[in-house]
Amino acid sequence: MTEMFAPRGSHDAVESGTQFSPKFDADGLIACIATDAETGQVVMFAHMNAEALALTIETSIAHYWSRSRGKLWRKGETSGHEQKVASLRVDCDQDALWLVVRTGGTGANCHTGRKGCFYREVPIGRAPDPEMKLSFVDDELLFDPSRVYGG
Amino acid sequence: MTEMFAPRGSHDAVESGTQFSPKFDADGLIACIATDAETGQVVMFAHMNAEALALTIETSIAHYWSRSRGKLWRKGETSGHEQKVASLRVDCDQDALWLVVRTGGTGANCHTGRKGCFYREVPIGRAPDPEMKLSFVDDELLFDPSRVYGG
Repeated sequence: MTEMFAPRGSHDAVESGTQFSPKFDADGLIACIATDAETGQVVMFAHMNAEALALTIETSIAHYWSRSRGKLWRKGETSGHEQKVASLRVDCDQDALWLVVRTGGTGANCHTGRKGCFYREVPIGRAPDPEMKLSFVDDELLFDPSRVYGG
Repeated sequence: MTEMFAPRGSHDAVESGTQFSPKFDADGLIACIATDAETGQVVMFAHMNAEALALTIETSIAHYWSRSRGKLWRKGETSGHEQKVASLRVDCDQDALWLVVRTGGTGANCHTGRKGCFYREVPIGRAPDPEMKLSFVDDELLFDPSRVYGG
């Protein structure tokens, strides 16, 4: 594959420059945070490989690498919940990306049928123990996963 | 170390239950997204190991694992930019955390002196190439890193 991104430069170039040199980990992946353009809520965390990132940049539609399925994944290809990318940012050391997205279909981003994947809160303020309980928040089901993905 | 978190249960228990069973990767780490409580912007991406997560939960002050320094890292221990955790959420498969934070000192979260780490935008809408240029956004310096961290 022809090089799509600039090679990693000096520490200063990576952190203070205008050159885009995304850092892929040992598995060839970069971490991606997706927030909803309307609500600002974090709706998903996923990974891209270089191909997924290039396709995302070219098409403005989010593509990821599915670690569980080991394949390129055009978000929404099965469910219709395509993510149109409003903006894409990179962090200081260029090993994480932040996508602001507008999601198609019902607007759900989580395969469980919810708007986002972060629908449970962890209690804080005392030492954790195995009996601690998560509480559900933003828990509305926007679609029925069994109908979309099968039984 | 005594077990602090519940063991991973069935797929259904992990995604639909109230049991907190964070999944740490092969390096013992879990991905963490931090957003600012006031602006809602993503300000940082980092990792926690089990100890950092337990300390974060117990104290409501964000602790991370510094991969570059290979040590537990109480955010703000050098700079005073402590992150008070307003809420902590976990995603569907419990391998990512979302912290909403209020940051002390100048309110900066990035070691470069900025409010957040995502201060550069990647152009989208055409195929990437090594010459593409990032543009700076939310670029204000809230502190001088050379004064805080040394030359």
